[in-house]
Amino acid sequence: FITMAAAARTLRIGLIPGDGIGREVIPAGQRVLESLPSSLNLKFSFVNLDAGFDTFQRTGTALPDKTVDTLKKECDGALFGAVSSPSTKVAGYSSPIVALRKKLDLYANVRPVKTTVGSTSGDPIDLVIVRENTEDLYVKEERTHEGPNGKVAEAIKRISESASTRISTIAGEIALRRQKIRAAAPATATRDQSMVTITHKSNVLSQTDGLFREAARKALAAERFSSVHVEEQIVDSMVYKLFRQPEYYDVIVAPNLYGDILSDGAAALVGSLGLVPSANVGDGFAIGEPCHGSAPDIEGKGVANPIATLRSVALMLEFLGEEIAAAKIYTAVDANLDEAKFLSPDMGGKATTQQVLDDVLKRL
Amino acid sequence: FITMAAAARTLRIGLIPGDGIGREVIPAGQRVLESLPSSLNLKFSFVNLDAGFDTFQRTGTALPDKTVDTLKKECDGALFGAVSSPSTKVAGYSSPIVALRKKLDLYANVRPVKTTVGSTSGDPIDLVIVRENTEDLYVKEERTHEGPNGKVAEAIKRISESASTRISTIAGEIALRRQKIRAAAPATATRDQSMVTITHKSNVLSQTDGLFREAARKALAAERFSSVHVEEQIVDSMVYKLFRQPEYYDVIVAPNLYGDILSDGAAALVGSLGLVPSANVGDGFAIGEPCHGSAPDIEGKGVANPIATLRSVALMLEFLGEEIAAAKIYTAVDANLDEAKFLSPDMGGKATTQQVLDDVLKRL
Ligand SMILES: CC(C)[C@H](C(=O)O)[C@@H](O)C(=O)O
Ligand SMILES: CC(C)[C@H](C(=O)O)[C@@H](O)C(=O)O
Repeated sequence: FITMAAAARTLRIGLIPGDGIGREVIPAGQRVLESLPSSLNLKFSFVNLDAGFDTFQRTGTALPDKTVDTLKKECDGALFGAVSSPSTKVAGYSSPIVALRKKLDLYANVRPVKTTVGSTSGDPIDLVIVRENTEDLYVKEERTHEGPNGKVAEAIKRISESASTRISTIAGEIALRRQKIRAAAPATATRDQSMVTITHKSNVLSQTDGLFREAARKALAAERFSSVHVEEQIVDSMVYKLFRQPEYYDVIVAPNLYGDILSDGAAALVGSLGLVPSANVGDGFAIGEPCHGSAPDIEGKGVANPIATLRSVALMLEFLGEEIAAAKIYTAVDANLDEAKFLSPDMGGKATTQQVLDDVLKRL
Repeated sequence: FITMAAAARTLRIGLIPGDGIGREVIPAGQRVLESLPSSLNLKFSFVNLDAGFDTFQRTGTALPDKTVDTLKKECDGALFGAVSSPSTKVAGYSSPIVALRKKLDLYANVRPVKTTVGSTSGDPIDLVIVRENTEDLYVKEERTHEGPNGKVAEAIKRISESASTRISTIAGEIALRRQKIRAAAPATATRDQSMVTITHKSNVLSQTDGLFREAARKALAAERFSSVHVEEQIVDSMVYKLFRQPEYYDVIVAPNLYGDILSDGAAALVGSLGLVPSANVGDGFAIGEPCHGSAPDIEGKGVANPIATLRSVALMLEFLGEEIAAAKIYTAVDANLDEAKFLSPDMGGKATTQQVLDDVLKRL
């Protein structure tokens, strides 16, 4: 018999640092990919791509066609840093990440929020927000007219059965996957049964949010989700409960804007936005994106927390089917946080971005 | 000289218990009004009015015309308890409180959230959310069509310059009033300068939320608000900051839906929705309304927390120009909470609604 080494899989990753500390954390993301053990048989190649407010100021567009084209034609995934929002309205500027989500049909925005063993005295929080990523008010169809009493502006909130079904199905799949991971490590499992909480405001928006709720109920009633407990929560109560009883939640599925708000709220529960990753996921493509912004106040100081980005790299890998590589990164990051020796200033520590990164890399 | 006793002012108050525990807390609100010291020279008359899901099931409408007419023609103010939202869609039913806000043009929803001296170890929280109450997605203009991939529903989010200006002006006035109250009691003042934080999502909704932001900026730039510090916060960051640094905030002004979500979030910070009051305010009319719901789980047990309602009564009185009477109720409620002898179960106590009420009444 001849034993053949499996051919290494090569993933081409677009790097989009964007603005501010995006330029400090995305290189850390690249480094962690380059440092994965060779036994994983994974190789990476990288391509640097432009987007953001600086790009807008330089070129007149926040998301150059070249960036979109390269991602579509050459890449398997990408890492997106952060973009600055101008503090006053700038004609012609609009958020490149919102556009990217739509242009690549990255219909799910997945945002896990968890405490590590060492970081909490109370019950551990381990939840994930699954946010619809293409519609709702983010369709950005707005218009303004001059009324008898001044300007009146209107925006469309669009909710479709198909997008609501799709995101709810993903939420169900994620609940099953989490259940599988818990079953594999029962000692650290935080719950017995997986659960999806559908968030909406159908008591006011009976058609749009009513449709979301109905589609979600139907999708999650499928036979393959029979082991998943399904419940719902009105969005305002959801924020209340998220703060009062975060350890109760497992998977939360929500339309785009509620998901945006809920994920920042959940981030507050674990101490710093600098810890919270996200992935923008479509069919066969994923962009890892830390949940924090461009943080102009600390830009260029080398103290940005790279953890959210490192976890976003892992999340991207998960959705590209590389769960073992992802688990390696998660474990190294958790160990860094639990030891709490190299923490960045947002965590009450003194370590630089580089020192946190080095500490994680040596644990890989 | 002949000294004439000032004629007593009589206020006619509509009582709308609604559903569930609304029927237990609104009588407590009536009692506190009846028990105000006669030295205040205030009299009250009451009229019971129907609204809610039970009313809907009985009569086919959740908000009878008679209720609206009586409020408009006879009343100076009102107290609204709570309404149940049916757990599945019920054709023809829609929230009577949302309708009432619009029909009486109660354009401001004012929701103060504060810790009392005894209830917190950290910095005291003392903020108020001033929520626009008539437009945004609450215009409830929705439609659904059948697309090639299933149903598609759309809702209008409407933001007008006039409503945004009006609510921001109220927010400024409230900031000034709070500054005056603090100046009168410097020993307990939690801040030096008053502040209004404008909340929006203009980085995505440049026209609608952009208009809100612009109108708010303009209204608050008026000379009379020159002592008020004005800043802004994107709604998702606002939720994050509200949880991380609630003591920082003073007055938060927001469009309708963000205000709805933020006020539940703020309520979570002070321990129980059962503590948080609101007033729906228009020109010369105010409806006090506890922020909690109809709480079917504890309905009929006599253990509902009446504090949110008692504070809502005070808030209503404030906006009807009776600030001294309002202060009496606030002080009695704070004393009840600080002594912490008669607390309802949501606060970890064992007192019934009646016992909490009696304890507050004896302090008036
Ligand atoms: C920057 C902004 C457009 C974006 C959003 O609203 O989605 C951000 O808040 C996020 O959550 O990724
Ligand atoms: C019951 C519901 C329609 C209402 C709202 O959304 O305004 C409630 O949440 C509130 O905050 O008063």
